[in-house]
Amino acid sequence: MSSAVARPAEPARGESPGTLARRLLREAVKATLATRLEAGAEEGSWPYASLVLVAADVDGTPILLLSKLAQHTHNIDTNPHVSLLVDGTEGHPDVLTGPRATLLGRARLSEDPQSKRRFVARHPSASFYAGFKDFHVYRIELDRAHLVAGFGRIDWIERDQLLLPATHCQSCSDSEEALLASVNEGRDEQQWRAIAFDPEGVDLRRGTALRRIAFDEPVADMKQARSRLKRALEGLSTEG
Amino acid sequence: MSSAVARPAEPARGESPGTLARRLLREAVKATLATRLEAGAEEGSWPYASLVLVAADVDGTPILLLSKLAQHTHNIDTNPHVSLLVDGTEGHPDVLTGPRATLLGRARLSEDPQSKRRFVARHPSASFYAGFKDFHVYRIELDRAHLVAGFGRIDWIERDQLLLPATHCQSCSDSEEALLASVNEGRDEQQWRAIAFDPEGVDLRRGTALRRIAFDEPVADMKQARSRLKRALEGLSTEG
Repeated sequence: MSSAVARPAEPARGESPGTLARRLLREAVKATLATRLEAGAEEGSWPYASLVLVAADVDGTPILLLSKLAQHTHNIDTNPHVSLLVDGTEGHPDVLTGPRATLLGRARLSEDPQSKRRFVARHPSASFYAGFKDFHVYRIELDRAHLVAGFGRIDWIERDQLLLPATHCQSCSDSEEALLASVNEGRDEQQWRAIAFDPEGVDLRRGTALRRIAFDEPVADMKQARSRLKRALEGLSTEG
Repeated sequence: MSSAVARPAEPARGESPGTLARRLLREAVKATLATRLEAGAEEGSWPYASLVLVAADVDGTPILLLSKLAQHTHNIDTNPHVSLLVDGTEGHPDVLTGPRATLLGRARLSEDPQSKRRFVARHPSASFYAGFKDFHVYRIELDRAHLVAGFGRIDWIERDQLLLPATHCQSCSDSEEALLASVNEGRDEQQWRAIAFDPEGVDLRRGTALRRIAFDEPVADMKQARSRLKRALEGLSTEG
């Protein structure tokens, strides 16, 4: 089965609302996008919920790849205000006690090659249409988020808590591709490979299966980054 | 694991878009609700996506149980226009080829005891707060739906195709409780029990596991209804 992150999200001890919301996004494969559907003068607009595949940028900015032909893309082009529900409740005995976050932001067309690379690395089936002329990368420039971490555990999170500050090892982010190439050296498609790195953890993929390993705390420099990534991959190799 | 319908939705041969959209709803445990969040004069409104548990009424009208304290309920009370994404893509090797539907409608407070009974029968954990003063049943009076049955297989569905006509065995729907009591006689909580009936099929629950059995075609009268329900339950008993 594809598109499954092995371990569902559970709020960790001491994890801040912003960190948890960001982790839910980083662990998500798909999400629900809410856009504004213009329904004519009489009706005004309708909130419109649709399914999208998601990836996250280094700082926690959501990345989407959308077709110009899709209804939600038309909605965004008319009005960029969107929200994105990332749902970490799968597998919970009572769905309403599981964690989920509504991320609110503005969807913006992006030409950033790093965003596109991260999306396609996470969703290899997307590489088929990622090159089509009517498919484009969008980034959701986040404004704030509404987190429900369980029944009655509810927070509004502002932008500065929601995104990872650029001060967290900017050099690691700048060198992402080189870092991934270096730790993946000698690993083939039958093995777990690192597909995306950020100071909070690493995303891995084996075939269509996805997995995320979060670091205990954000790494501070390239040396730490390289050693954590190697350790994460070695840990998985001995798992068999 | 709870809250799982055993067999994910696949478009059946010859199934109309309306029937498939209704089936996705009937098989769903949770859904994403999109509402309109008023964000002040400067920002206008934002589409707001949040997680809800769902049930369906006999004709395919979505049923929700919402807390007055929740953000989405506040949004609905300000503006009843909503949409509901029902996602049948779980387990698909490529999420974008799986079926899902966006149901658009107006959320209305409901005092209908049948709606509440069907919601609580599907979500027994909800019985804990279903009696609280700040929890209310809402029905989504459907307007139309947008169905994506796979990559490029996209339809808009109007209300008359989306809801099951009341002419389909109205007497079965009127006698739902008696029908369920009769077929569940002698079955205990360790066994599959029929928890909701409609002319297109039956919903079953054993503990927190849910299952739906769709009939080959809608039943026409009470005699047919009773015999199909008995056959469905007997089929599950021999499955062990």
